[in-house]
Amino acid sequence: MDFSTWMSGIQQRTESALEAALPAPTLAPANLHEAMRYAVLGGGKRVRPLLCHAAGSIFNIAGSVLDAPAIAVELIHAYSLVHDDLPCMDDDDLRRGKPSCHVQYDEATALLVGDALQTLAFQTLSNRLAGIAAARQLDMLHLLAVASGSRGMAGGQAIDLAAVGQQLDIGELEFMHIHKTGALIRSAVLLGAHCGEAAPDALEHLGHYANRIGLLFQVVDDILDAEASTATLGKTAGKDAAQNKPTYVNILGAREAKAMASKLRQDAHDVLAPFGASALRLHELADFIVERTF
Amino acid sequence: MDFSTWMSGIQQRTESALEAALPAPTLAPANLHEAMRYAVLGGGKRVRPLLCHAAGSIFNIAGSVLDAPAIAVELIHAYSLVHDDLPCMDDDDLRRGKPSCHVQYDEATALLVGDALQTLAFQTLSNRLAGIAAARQLDMLHLLAVASGSRGMAGGQAIDLAAVGQQLDIGELEFMHIHKTGALIRSAVLLGAHCGEAAPDALEHLGHYANRIGLLFQVVDDILDAEASTATLGKTAGKDAAQNKPTYVNILGAREAKAMASKLRQDAHDVLAPFGASALRLHELADFIVERTF
Repeated sequence: MDFSTWMSGIQQRTESALEAALPAPTLAPANLHEAMRYAVLGGGKRVRPLLCHAAGSIFNIAGSVLDAPAIAVELIHAYSLVHDDLPCMDDDDLRRGKPSCHVQYDEATALLVGDALQTLAFQTLSNRLAGIAAARQLDMLHLLAVASGSRGMAGGQAIDLAAVGQQLDIGELEFMHIHKTGALIRSAVLLGAHCGEAAPDALEHLGHYANRIGLLFQVVDDILDAEASTATLGKTAGKDAAQNKPTYVNILGAREAKAMASKLRQDAHDVLAPFGASALRLHELADFIVERTF
Repeated sequence: MDFSTWMSGIQQRTESALEAALPAPTLAPANLHEAMRYAVLGGGKRVRPLLCHAAGSIFNIAGSVLDAPAIAVELIHAYSLVHDDLPCMDDDDLRRGKPSCHVQYDEATALLVGDALQTLAFQTLSNRLAGIAAARQLDMLHLLAVASGSRGMAGGQAIDLAAVGQQLDIGELEFMHIHKTGALIRSAVLLGAHCGEAAPDALEHLGHYANRIGLLFQVVDDILDAEASTATLGKTAGKDAAQNKPTYVNILGAREAKAMASKLRQDAHDVLAPFGASALRLHELADFIVERTF
């Protein structure tokens, strides 16, 4: 199966699994459930679920086992977007080519949507998974929680907020992104690997891969924010510059940022070497992330 | 041990457990961690941890086992207060006698504080608990998630928002509170019972108890909001009337609301009968909740 066929298949099964996990829009409170579905369904590249399934594929894990961790990570990601777009945060009206949640509904609803999506992530991953030992599943929940919380994604948001208008050096910028986007991307890869009962050294290699991918993802995002149009992105372009946010492009310049992306892709490929052909999908995903820009 | 000695002991161990679970204020991002600690420590009656420990005491479960579920529920409660106080929700400046989190810090920080406290609840409860089977612990996580999410607490908030300025009848009001406060109170009792590997019929009795306590708690809260002063409450008194929110007092009148509280206390006591003397603390907690008012 070629990469794009594989990717479409994962995206479709992810959409179905999200659809099934989200409460029906007819269920009370209907307005909240409708807004939760609006924020999650029908958009996004599902990069985190793709990484989770790709990591699981190294160990020949069935997609039906990987769906729960894959959508748990995606629900955390979706909640973070809804809260990030709120007026007190990034104040963004556009998300995935549609009005953002608080614009389509209202701020109070968007706040509750984000809250309830986070809960739904943990609810989903606490359903007993067939073929996974309960103790391992607890470890997976713990891993997702640590990646999402104040020492992971939410902490990265706090560092980001504090950095607006500041001059960061490249090390400080990296520290922020390791938390803000890197931690959750890393959890997507590791959760897939945990489903395969990966040995500690395999988890370590995959952790290194995920760290490169997390930074790569952010460098590419910064390049796109600087160079692509709002229509292409489906979110407001040029926002980082307008908000005076530090980015790889404004610290390194566009050419250096692109060189950094190439280097991170190569590093990601190199660290997959021990897995040989079984890591095909992770290999291809590194390419896919870079090729959004060039 | 008399009730008030028992209660102080649980409150103290809850404070210590929360203190230990919350990241140190020196750990990066320091501002977020300081604000999380501000929102959680040094206040509150810890009713939910008391209920969890009281339910566990029926089965002679050690306090050291009950601490984790007790503080997980309290962290969910604390996150909900921080988000409820935000300007787009109840817009309340005062909480537990102090400026509320977004007043002391800022809205963006308070948003992240709530988000990270929710995550910390699930992180705490996914740490392996000594003496509890992993499969049961997964069930406990699932129970907490369902109680907190769109079909529980967060859903109750959404129903509450939609009810502002509406005429609710007593049935609709009860439906709102079963979700908004009842679900989490119920989870506190059931999590304590799960630590004791309670049999299904015991869980059912305790579920009935918890349902009465959840409503009792809300009726008492409405009476206090109408009758007590801001100084006594440590939060803004008379807020429900000012915001034109439906309450038991304005639907039933103060006298009927108090009669309802007495009846709920009696029902809560009655349903504990099968447990005999082992349910002493749950029995006393029903009294404690009522005696805040009379």
